[in-house]
Amino acid sequence: MGETKKQGPTEVDEKGKFIRQKNRFSTTFGSEAGELPVEAGKYRLLWAAVCPWAHRSVIVRSVLGLEDVISLGTASPMRPNIDRVDWEFSLDKNGVDPVLGIKYISEVYLQADAKYEGRPTVPVIVDIAEKKAVNNDYFRLTNHFETAWKPFHKENAPELYPEHLREEIDALSDIIFHEVNNGVYKCGFARSQEAYEEAYDVLFIRLDELEKRLSTHRFLFGDYITDSDVRLYATLVRFDVAYYAAFKTNRNRIVDFPNLWGYLRDLYQTPGFGDTTDFEAIKIHYHLSNHIANDDQKGPNNILPKGPDTSIFNSKHDREALSGKEEKFLIQ
Amino acid sequence: MGETKKQGPTEVDEKGKFIRQKNRFSTTFGSEAGELPVEAGKYRLLWAAVCPWAHRSVIVRSVLGLEDVISLGTASPMRPNIDRVDWEFSLDKNGVDPVLGIKYISEVYLQADAKYEGRPTVPVIVDIAEKKAVNNDYFRLTNHFETAWKPFHKENAPELYPEHLREEIDALSDIIFHEVNNGVYKCGFARSQEAYEEAYDVLFIRLDELEKRLSTHRFLFGDYITDSDVRLYATLVRFDVAYYAAFKTNRNRIVDFPNLWGYLRDLYQTPGFGDTTDFEAIKIHYHLSNHIANDDQKGPNNILPKGPDTSIFNSKHDREALSGKEEKFLIQ
Repeated sequence: MGETKKQGPTEVDEKGKFIRQKNRFSTTFGSEAGELPVEAGKYRLLWAAVCPWAHRSVIVRSVLGLEDVISLGTASPMRPNIDRVDWEFSLDKNGVDPVLGIKYISEVYLQADAKYEGRPTVPVIVDIAEKKAVNNDYFRLTNHFETAWKPFHKENAPELYPEHLREEIDALSDIIFHEVNNGVYKCGFARSQEAYEEAYDVLFIRLDELEKRLSTHRFLFGDYITDSDVRLYATLVRFDVAYYAAFKTNRNRIVDFPNLWGYLRDLYQTPGFGDTTDFEAIKIHYHLSNHIANDDQKGPNNILPKGPDTSIFNSKHDREALSGKEEKFLIQ
Repeated sequence: MGETKKQGPTEVDEKGKFIRQKNRFSTTFGSEAGELPVEAGKYRLLWAAVCPWAHRSVIVRSVLGLEDVISLGTASPMRPNIDRVDWEFSLDKNGVDPVLGIKYISEVYLQADAKYEGRPTVPVIVDIAEKKAVNNDYFRLTNHFETAWKPFHKENAPELYPEHLREEIDALSDIIFHEVNNGVYKCGFARSQEAYEEAYDVLFIRLDELEKRLSTHRFLFGDYITDSDVRLYATLVRFDVAYYAAFKTNRNRIVDFPNLWGYLRDLYQTPGFGDTTDFEAIKIHYHLSNHIANDDQKGPNNILPKGPDTSIFNSKHDREALSGKEEKFLIQ
């Protein structure tokens, strides 16, 4: 989901709190009437590597082996230099997505609804033949990949959303959404000191709680990666590189939490996670892109920070030692 | 010395490098003709707690016990909200320094030279009776306190500038000035990516070298604090709290260097250092003050970061273990 600033005022309440816009296209995938049919080659997933909401769907697509089933179009981390919030295919030849032939992501939104007035966000699933947005439900998209798209999963794909854990996963994902994933945005886009401090406190209390949880569990639900880990990862991996400075989430960094830091490296070193993480895109977006940077965080004359050192994401973590000690885990 | 931004362009060369202005008032203290007489109660030192160049003179004044001999006036970390670079006594009753009766530091500069056109900087030594600036030589001021002001040192004051080490201290202070003290400003005020990266590389190569040096030496010259330690401290103590984010000196923080971090805490916990360090002033200046923040680093709607956690400056460091192993140390 694209972060905004220019349209921020329409997403800020009277107390200066950031209130994220609702999704417009949330039709589910399946074989029921009114559902989106599950078909190989029918859809294209559009994302920008900077965006944590889009990143999670790209991770799950990769972990489950859906790459040949749902193609991927990548927008630039730099917002277009025009007076609107959009995502642009300036990384592609001639500045156009090679499959859809579009220049801006807004085009698939307008194709779906000529009166669409919200922010055009990523991730968005596009019907390739019709070139229109059919699903931009960043919150549920990974769950659709995990359930409705099961017939196309690769052999031995992990079970990211096992039925017996769904209730607990959903409950935890909800907490992670409000307090961590969107929590960093609540800090960064707050327009009052009070709203910022409230979001900051909630965020770090939750990180402290997760730090404790991960001291005895290799992943959030024990020995195996689940959908909740993907959600937490997308924020953690951006934390020290971007949010710490750009969103003032600076009580401490993730590297300062022994368990969260080991957990983050463990995931980073897992296929589908680190190999879909583009630190350069993340840095460029938060420090140079117009809509975030213009009057907020933009550095002097477009200077991109050299640090931090991200080679440490490949260092040993020894989290394997926590495996095989799984026990029933209840959300605290 | 006050950091600038508004007047930045006059202190930036054609390659985007930051070139600090020269000092205007550098008359030395002493009994020779033309020197400033060394007299208790004759002068007032003006500073702002944010400023590293001023902080070093306040540390030395405290360590040597000159508090009753040279009084201290404290300007606000917030630049005045007017279209000029100045320092303001807005922390004082009625916004006026209680001894000099001035509102802005520029007043003592104009009193000394009605045509003064440089930035009015701190530290500045003011002749109280004449209300005029007599010395703003931030580079040499601590050395004057250490030498010419010796008759007024407290009993058992440490020897911060011992004669047999002066040549080495001066050589190291020169390196620390160019690569570290002013090095962070060269990063933060660079106006080209190239100038920024050059300063960044030089800074971290030097910090790596100092890290190594401090692995076997409790202080830069062995068992005892010298003037060089004061100079290094003033930058290190601001690093994680301000420069890391505001000046993009973000390869890593000081807490990530085991020896520099222990050394920094060792100094912080020494009378004259931590008790003259005002983290709140430092944060306010770099994040909220106009001249730095307006179009550079200013956060959204004047939001002050809550972090980082500075209580850790009081944690144990165990640097005492390095004492008593002094050997002749040559600058590498």
